[in-house]
Amino acid sequence: MGLGGPPTILPKGPTVSELCDFGLIGLAVMGENLALNVESRGNKVAVYNRTTSVVDDFINGRAKGKQFVGCHSLEELVKNLARPRKVMMMVKAGPAVDAVIDSLKPLLEPGDIIIDGGNTYYADTERRTKEVEEAGFLYSGTGVSGGEEGALKGPSMMPGGSPDSWPHLKPIFQAIAAKVGPNNDIPCCEWVGPRGAGHYVKMVHNGIEYGDMQLICEAYSMLKEGLGLTNDELYDVFAEWNTGDLDSYLIEITRDIFSVKDPETGQFMVDLVLDRAGAKGTGKWMSQLALDLGVPSTLVTEAVYARGLSARKDERVKAAKVLQGPSPKYDGDRKQFIEQVRQALYASKIVSYAQGFVQLQAAAAEHDWPLNYGECAMLWRGGCIIRAVFLDRIKEAFDKNPNLENLLLDFYFAGAVDKCQDAWRHVVSQAALLGIPVPAFYTALAYYDGFRREILPANLLQSQRDYFGAHTYERTDKPRGEMFHTEWLDLRKEPS
Amino acid sequence: MGLGGPPTILPKGPTVSELCDFGLIGLAVMGENLALNVESRGNKVAVYNRTTSVVDDFINGRAKGKQFVGCHSLEELVKNLARPRKVMMMVKAGPAVDAVIDSLKPLLEPGDIIIDGGNTYYADTERRTKEVEEAGFLYSGTGVSGGEEGALKGPSMMPGGSPDSWPHLKPIFQAIAAKVGPNNDIPCCEWVGPRGAGHYVKMVHNGIEYGDMQLICEAYSMLKEGLGLTNDELYDVFAEWNTGDLDSYLIEITRDIFSVKDPETGQFMVDLVLDRAGAKGTGKWMSQLALDLGVPSTLVTEAVYARGLSARKDERVKAAKVLQGPSPKYDGDRKQFIEQVRQALYASKIVSYAQGFVQLQAAAAEHDWPLNYGECAMLWRGGCIIRAVFLDRIKEAFDKNPNLENLLLDFYFAGAVDKCQDAWRHVVSQAALLGIPVPAFYTALAYYDGFRREILPANLLQSQRDYFGAHTYERTDKPRGEMFHTEWLDLRKEPS
Repeated sequence: MGLGGPPTILPKGPTVSELCDFGLIGLAVMGENLALNVESRGNKVAVYNRTTSVVDDFINGRAKGKQFVGCHSLEELVKNLARPRKVMMMVKAGPAVDAVIDSLKPLLEPGDIIIDGGNTYYADTERRTKEVEEAGFLYSGTGVSGGEEGALKGPSMMPGGSPDSWPHLKPIFQAIAAKVGPNNDIPCCEWVGPRGAGHYVKMVHNGIEYGDMQLICEAYSMLKEGLGLTNDELYDVFAEWNTGDLDSYLIEITRDIFSVKDPETGQFMVDLVLDRAGAKGTGKWMSQLALDLGVPSTLVTEAVYARGLSARKDERVKAAKVLQGPSPKYDGDRKQFIEQVRQALYASKIVSYAQGFVQLQAAAAEHDWPLNYGECAMLWRGGCIIRAVFLDRIKEAFDKNPNLENLLLDFYFAGAVDKCQDAWRHVVSQAALLGIPVPAFYTALAYYDGFRREILPANLLQSQRDYFGAHTYERTDKPRGEMFHTEWLDLRKEPS
Repeated sequence: MGLGGPPTILPKGPTVSELCDFGLIGLAVMGENLALNVESRGNKVAVYNRTTSVVDDFINGRAKGKQFVGCHSLEELVKNLARPRKVMMMVKAGPAVDAVIDSLKPLLEPGDIIIDGGNTYYADTERRTKEVEEAGFLYSGTGVSGGEEGALKGPSMMPGGSPDSWPHLKPIFQAIAAKVGPNNDIPCCEWVGPRGAGHYVKMVHNGIEYGDMQLICEAYSMLKEGLGLTNDELYDVFAEWNTGDLDSYLIEITRDIFSVKDPETGQFMVDLVLDRAGAKGTGKWMSQLALDLGVPSTLVTEAVYARGLSARKDERVKAAKVLQGPSPKYDGDRKQFIEQVRQALYASKIVSYAQGFVQLQAAAAEHDWPLNYGECAMLWRGGCIIRAVFLDRIKEAFDKNPNLENLLLDFYFAGAVDKCQDAWRHVVSQAALLGIPVPAFYTALAYYDGFRREILPANLLQSQRDYFGAHTYERTDKPRGEMFHTEWLDLRKEPS
């Protein structure tokens, strides 16, 4: 303030020193927890929720005694934020996001930042980034993984959008994100790429999660049906698996699950849970986009379909009475089989991640996102559902060769799969003979065996297409891109 | 004409008796052939093409001496048609169709009929039917299958759209369609359903075609790699297969293909065709829609992905140098193995059709199409790529039970799969051990083994989802729809 000059007239509202560092819209459990996380790192946070009683409940409840400002309108929220304002939306993906953006636009000033931390379809974020930038603001579509607990204690964060937003978001986001590394100081949060890149990477994370969960379920089937393991025995198996290559959050909670008993009945909880899987749509999106890109992301798709089949419970109950099958009992060496199932799971998991990264590369090429794939793996190293030691190996592979076309071509992963393949083949062949459904094990092996083949039977397929539809084909003995057509009907042997 | 009154002034143009019965827009090869087919059944046909020289070439070429009127404008085309006008578009699916419709609207009169015979995405046909009806006309999205030859000699036709259009189209369409039955008098053309139903059924036809072709390629792989059969031997195998349950157009042309030699080099043509499969998108659509509907149409999707993997030839060539696998040579009884592969193909094919009809049922429920599934099977009985004796069995199954939820629950098909399953399991297990990629055999077996299971491992999956995301679950011992949540972390055994 000027000395000796005329008195400065401050605008109504909080003084600069009272302004908040961060604004959050949408106080469902994820929003609340993220807000608490941001505040806990020394930030003052303004919060708003459409149903304003939720704001009051939060301020008088979990936020009590903390550096929060509860707001009853977006105007109030914006007025309480230091510039450039950082306003994060934690609202339901879809039209609600557009509605909030539209309401914010007249209130914000140039350079302010709108963040979408929801599970938004990446193409919406592509569009919104452009729209918000054209209105003079910055936008960040940020994937947030880790569920409620992660949001509170340290999520995995995948920020994308306007590159100019990142310097402003970085200190806050990297402070609240999960930390990994020997000194627990590497944040699982790094700039992903422009526009929808952050939400795309988050979607691939979720799709890989679908694959991991399905693979674990298939291993569970093989051990439970094939060997008749009890929940106690399964606990021990997963506890052991969690100490090696498979060391990961999902293996860990699977171990835990086998120990939980229903307080009401005393029975194992997992046996009381109905086998109808739900889904929220990100695995489906990833599959549909893979199909558009022409990349074979077979693991996530089989996982989505497996959930779909599980949901058709009533039909299955009927079918179980009609359709026959062999006895699922395995009669080989039990201990050895458990280890073989572990190797089948590990090899299939490698294929699943290989497919996920191929899809990321194809999407990056299509949308002109300069993605760093090793970095993506590190973002998932902590805080999120697929966190696993394994991801360090992926980082190393892309560090060695940033243009690696497929993880399976990396020396480490090629060797890892090779070491597992006899066991993997044995488990898959046994699943077929025992009648245990393992769609993800199957498709992973089919992908491996297809990918490593210089020649696939598509020569016959192209011949068929040319025969009935004159679709033309390329020849092995002519340059690629030169198309040929044969009058098959005229040249065929006259059938006897 | 009034007697003794003033002379009636006829509008310029043809007299009523000179008017055409049918109009066709778009003289690419499919359009030309359809026009010739319609004309050959005693109809006078007016034709138009945007590049008008194509019209002249046609009129002076293949149409010479026939009942055709070549038109150089849509006005001329419309003027030459008897009412209600029947104008069929054979133009590229997409915006071109909308453009033609927009141009036709000001020229047509109430009750006139616009037909789209292209490979249109069903949702576009849903929309266009409404738009055209609102403008006072009738619309028919008609799936046409059978390629160039079918169009000329008798295609399979799947008409949908405005129900009032059908009585006018029926005599012409059923006359030009393929005929089947003991007396060769059952047309492969029957009303499918309102709006986009015809194009949807056509899409499912194409998706099933993807599955059939992939399955044949996998059988080919098993026989070629596993047994080292020569093309001559493969010819004999497919010739024999074509006399039994598998009797079908695709098996027949596969047989033929193994006999065709390249006139230039004298080598077998199939060995000179490059193993990179193309695709036109209908298999992809069917997969994406299956994912939206939540129905597991795994065969078509694996077939689409297999084409995608085949197209990545350069990567596969690299991978073939890096990734190891077992020897693909089978050392059991050769003759028996050929029969086992046949049974694996047949069982997988049954699963593929079961999935296709489940998807049709789900789509019909979503869009309120009163489909007749047995009729759909009969539409494919002749004229089209998937024509097969086998379809009679599907018709019989739906005749017995129009509400059949899954073909696998039909007595005939349940028995057929059961008879094949030992062989099927043997082939699949051998594929895994020999390292031969059979994604469609695999996924068909996984579907069968999953579908016939009252309990799938999705109980574990739901436990995981509830553990990390509080997604809640249903219980086996409580009514369906009641949701539960467990604090797994609190109840788990403390890890040692």
